[in-house]
Amino acid sequence: MEDFLHPDRFFSPDPGQRSIARDLYEGVKNLPLVCPHGHVDPRIFADPEYRFGSPTELFLVPDHYIFRMLYSRGVQLEELGVPDREGKSSFDPRRAWQIFADHFYLFTGTPSGIWLRDELANVFGISGKLHSGNAQEVYDQIDKKLHSPDFSPRSLFARFNIEVLCTTDAAADKLEFHKAIQSSGWDGRILPTFRPDTVVNLDTPGWINHIHKLEEAAGIAIADFKAFISALEERRGFFKSMGAAATDHAALTAQTLDLSDLEMETIFQRALKGKSNKEDAAAFTTGMLVEMARMSIDDGLVMQLHVGSLRNHNAEIYRKFGLDKGADIPVTSEFTRSLKPLLDRFGNHPGLTLILFNLDETTYARELAPLAGHYPALRIGPPWWFHDSLNGMRRFFDRVIETAGVYNTVGFNDDTRAFPSIPARHDVWRRAACDWAAGQVVRHIIDREDAEQIVEALSYSLAKQAYNL
Amino acid sequence: MEDFLHPDRFFSPDPGQRSIARDLYEGVKNLPLVCPHGHVDPRIFADPEYRFGSPTELFLVPDHYIFRMLYSRGVQLEELGVPDREGKSSFDPRRAWQIFADHFYLFTGTPSGIWLRDELANVFGISGKLHSGNAQEVYDQIDKKLHSPDFSPRSLFARFNIEVLCTTDAAADKLEFHKAIQSSGWDGRILPTFRPDTVVNLDTPGWINHIHKLEEAAGIAIADFKAFISALEERRGFFKSMGAAATDHAALTAQTLDLSDLEMETIFQRALKGKSNKEDAAAFTTGMLVEMARMSIDDGLVMQLHVGSLRNHNAEIYRKFGLDKGADIPVTSEFTRSLKPLLDRFGNHPGLTLILFNLDETTYARELAPLAGHYPALRIGPPWWFHDSLNGMRRFFDRVIETAGVYNTVGFNDDTRAFPSIPARHDVWRRAACDWAAGQVVRHIIDREDAEQIVEALSYSLAKQAYNL
Amino acid sequence: MEDFLHPDRFFSPDPGQRSIARDLYEGVKNLPLVCPHGHVDPRIFADPEYRFGSPTELFLVPDHYIFRMLYSRGVQLEELGVPDREGKSSFDPRRAWQIFADHFYLFTGTPSGIWLRDELANVFGISGKLHSGNAQEVYDQIDKKLHSPDFSPRSLFARFNIEVLCTTDAAADKLEFHKAIQSSGWDGRILPTFRPDTVVNLDTPGWINHIHKLEEAAGIAIADFKAFISALEERRGFFKSMGAAATDHAALTAQTLDLSDLEMETIFQRALKGKSNKEDAAAFTTGMLVEMARMSIDDGLVMQLHVGSLRNHNAEIYRKFGLDKGADIPVTSEFTRSLKPLLDRFGNHPGLTLILFNLDETTYARELAPLAGHYPALRIGPPWWFHDSLNGMRRFFDRVIETAGVYNTVGFNDDTRAFPSIPARHDVWRRAACDWAAGQVVRHIIDREDAEQIVEALSYSLAKQAYNL
Repeated sequence: MEDFLHPDRFFSPDPGQRSIARDLYEGVKNLPLVCPHGHVDPRIFADPEYRFGSPTELFLVPDHYIFRMLYSRGVQLEELGVPDREGKSSFDPRRAWQIFADHFYLFTGTPSGIWLRDELANVFGISGKLHSGNAQEVYDQIDKKLHSPDFSPRSLFARFNIEVLCTTDAAADKLEFHKAIQSSGWDGRILPTFRPDTVVNLDTPGWINHIHKLEEAAGIAIADFKAFISALEERRGFFKSMGAAATDHAALTAQTLDLSDLEMETIFQRALKGKSNKEDAAAFTTGMLVEMARMSIDDGLVMQLHVGSLRNHNAEIYRKFGLDKGADIPVTSEFTRSLKPLLDRFGNHPGLTLILFNLDETTYARELAPLAGHYPALRIGPPWWFHDSLNGMRRFFDRVIETAGVYNTVGFNDDTRAFPSIPARHDVWRRAACDWAAGQVVRHIIDREDAEQIVEALSYSLAKQAYNL
Repeated sequence: MEDFLHPDRFFSPDPGQRSIARDLYEGVKNLPLVCPHGHVDPRIFADPEYRFGSPTELFLVPDHYIFRMLYSRGVQLEELGVPDREGKSSFDPRRAWQIFADHFYLFTGTPSGIWLRDELANVFGISGKLHSGNAQEVYDQIDKKLHSPDFSPRSLFARFNIEVLCTTDAAADKLEFHKAIQSSGWDGRILPTFRPDTVVNLDTPGWINHIHKLEEAAGIAIADFKAFISALEERRGFFKSMGAAATDHAALTAQTLDLSDLEMETIFQRALKGKSNKEDAAAFTTGMLVEMARMSIDDGLVMQLHVGSLRNHNAEIYRKFGLDKGADIPVTSEFTRSLKPLLDRFGNHPGLTLILFNLDETTYARELAPLAGHYPALRIGPPWWFHDSLNGMRRFFDRVIETAGVYNTVGFNDDTRAFPSIPARHDVWRRAACDWAAGQVVRHIIDREDAEQIVEALSYSLAKQAYNL
Repeated sequence: MEDFLHPDRFFSPDPGQRSIARDLYEGVKNLPLVCPHGHVDPRIFADPEYRFGSPTELFLVPDHYIFRMLYSRGVQLEELGVPDREGKSSFDPRRAWQIFADHFYLFTGTPSGIWLRDELANVFGISGKLHSGNAQEVYDQIDKKLHSPDFSPRSLFARFNIEVLCTTDAAADKLEFHKAIQSSGWDGRILPTFRPDTVVNLDTPGWINHIHKLEEAAGIAIADFKAFISALEERRGFFKSMGAAATDHAALTAQTLDLSDLEMETIFQRALKGKSNKEDAAAFTTGMLVEMARMSIDDGLVMQLHVGSLRNHNAEIYRKFGLDKGADIPVTSEFTRSLKPLLDRFGNHPGLTLILFNLDETTYARELAPLAGHYPALRIGPPWWFHDSLNGMRRFFDRVIETAGVYNTVGFNDDTRAFPSIPARHDVWRRAACDWAAGQVVRHIIDREDAEQIVEALSYSLAKQAYNL
């Protein structure tokens, strides 16, 4: 396996740097995994007997990183078992796996290729590239393991050495699975995260139904903006009581506006009547971001903001298959002017931690690092999505640290729904951090002592501290 | 010559990476050159006896990469023999060459410097830097060779090992030189490319004259938009019959709009009456891009789109000297929102190949790679123009491959009008690709087998496949 | 001290590159420092007996690079002695120094960390990291030295081997300190720079008062735009007579517009009546940039333009503490379209040198290098502010040189108000330039002779030539 997964992988070829990187990595590779943001389904931990399905259902069907690439080269989503909008799919898992193997070369040099290789080797003991010839044999090997108790989610959670795993949950979610986990006596720490996007974004399809669910969950009739806010506060309180450390917010832009209650109420009333328009939705989001910052100061939940993804870009794919099908495409982001209204109110408040993520790397050195290097309330999240990659991490370190320093960042988020890929993702980050720090040492920018502190912080304690975990 | 052109040039100094890069390069350096996009004048191949003029006319006069740099440091274009708008120039080729040599140090570390050094050494056998002292001697050496049959375009074509060379030709072009080449019995493969910019861009100076030429060439009276489309289809058919593989389109932005025939007709009628304005021209371009994608699906011609160059930025130079004088300056580009209308119609169509080029590298990781990593119709062209350089290529590989993979790119385009520079340009790309792949190998991101496949694809087969050559 | 400040610091770990970098650095490390742009207070050189205050007043109080980072992690500016808007502060310098030392780890890997380490070691002989434990001891050591004549500004000026130092001075400044320096017989060359921002930017708080000062200084009553221009010309003449080489202009954007005298007069009259608005101010700036270019051609002063900083982003900090408190945050910049009106008038003029600085690195390869690689009037300033860092310099070299060449850049500006940090800043640049050039040599892109010329130019002669010093 050493040949397949080289122990020095992702380190500089320079012997001096490599040697230091290796030493640094030795010090952090076995630290527990802190996972403050991700999309793993809590259901898989609620039932101790839960088993993942076939290899195809584990690796392909839920992973839009994978099937988007196959789709780009002519494979149809139907062939891979991706369910349609109604959740229906009809496919042959072995045939789908064969197609995956036939196209495995497409992932050469991509993060997906790296994670898959690591997962196959370290989780399933398969030390060789997947290809047309070994596809069915590999399928059999994985399939067999997936039926064993050693490969239940709870077993893997323990084996992966996960200290805490945060899920992402809708505002109206009753957190039944989290309750079941907590009452089961299992000691795995699975925490919810409050994500109110469907009720905050007025243009969510079926928005009013989400409001009804929120009413029901909060036990508050939502006839006006004030009640809406009360309902959100109630839910945040409930999430917090269930162990939540943070909230999460998605927006196309980082625009914030400190709108008056009257302005918000006016828009909200239009929305309740089904008469709000696109401009209303955009304005409401800008105001709600400020409102959410206020609530974070009140209840201490850390606020995460993910901006810059234009969702569901491919109209036909969206119509047929719905959300999260690999067709979310980044756009430019702006923070300096956009965040000013929020920061004018709360940027100097010691009680706010606002963690920023986006997909426009030009903002790293130009806006995010100068902002986070000044405002007490701001922190910079790790490279997100397409930039959760070796080059993405290198660019992040190169562009962020000089101006923001290490301690205005928050370590790593795996941000994945692919549970078995979690160790591989953290390992890439830890290796990238160690190699970057080693590069600073051999250039005599920092010393060994600094480097050891930095890689420990990036691998473990920054995430724990930033999210109060 | 080994000292002047080091055999390991452009490779990493790391011994391990260099050694692998060298091995990979050995495997691709002699592959035939596939040149799917460029601006070489087909005239030079039509006449077997064609000879290039003086060294000055070969190297300086037509190369805006060269004379723009001299101009930036105070040399006047007149001194270099750059012809004015009427094509007139009065200059002393030896004096111009001397000025060039006196300023050769300006090209230190630039792609032009690299190409010139390679051309001088490998095409003309001159192994030393050009400088004030050797200017006239070098002039004599080149001048002598240019008179020899070994330095005719056809001889160089064979010596350069060019498999296919695509030119770029106006929609109304009768392709006389291509016909002459094909009927001459010479086996060099010179293919036209259909570039309809002058008739598609309503604000082309003398647009109506270009329409008249198109009418004549197509044998179709163009009284309305429908006839205009028919004429373009006729010409595409003719280009295809002459071997064309692709079309090429230049636009300031990538904006597309799926306009109705009525909207297009209305604008077109205004244009025919000489009454269209700037907004009409912009709108018409957006609609024609969608129209051209439709035609590509119909006739199978690959569609190339080059965006983001603000042409003729220097008003005075444009007034005196006209187009292509080194004063085309890039602007920011946007693809995510701009291409959506076109992609909503044709992005999932297996019959479309749309290759995207632009001059705003921030789009690589943010927009182009995610788009091409999802849509079957999209491919990413190699780094263009100012980015056709060692650093430009490194940034391209670093930012594109992780998200789009290797196989959503299309290898290399030399995109040059400087025919003798073609081998130097491909060699830089091949060396850059080998060094990049070797860097992936020594970091254990990919293995040797992957690396060999990738560099072959980037050097040769991707271009051939993407353009169906 | 060699262990603390490694002699090979900032050089590549590759032995070949490092060895060449070291050789190149040997050739430039002792060249005199040319400082064509900065913010050192000329007052400190006017009085031979001038002494810096406490270590806290030297290092912390005036340096917004330092206190912004402490502020971002919860330290209050009041604790550090940063004076409020009225210039009042009440703090314990030793306590502030202790807080600084307690948080010194925040600067790990930042330029401030690098400069501080260099200053402490090379200026004050303190070879070890500052930390909680040694804070007071280090304070004592520095404090003692600051009282010695060897640490007077004039002594340090000589010891630093500064050939010329340009300050930045308001248009109405009577340059009393420059006069005092010149008449004192001291041979240090301290030159003023003409910065008319407060009178050119109509939205400067108290603009009319600045106009009154300008009237008084120029001896010209400013009742209309023409008189305003005459007053500026008079002041430029005075600055030039005092040795000024350049002007400096700050603007949020690079927008220029060739407005008529009537348009400018109309706006100016509104401003005189206190009735100009935000749009007036923006328009006036665009017109004044063109006007200033015209004046530069007339009087030969080099024109510097710094764009892209949104000043005083933090409303609360601005209200309490005023300008320059680490809360100036960059925004995107645009040059291609913005500069065209100015360049249409003066871009080809041999008498203009316009040096461009900005904080949006995406403009380097996309806009600045192509513009400067064509227009005789344009040059690219070194990486500014947050980008005055090792990575910022590497990105600058990588993105600018291939298209603009070395000789359309202007070497280094330290741009600092922290006088004792000047040698450290130049040293970082020289080391970065040598390492970059060495990297080109080992990749056989340039040869040793080229490299030696380039690093000399970047370290010394380009600045001298570009500013006519």
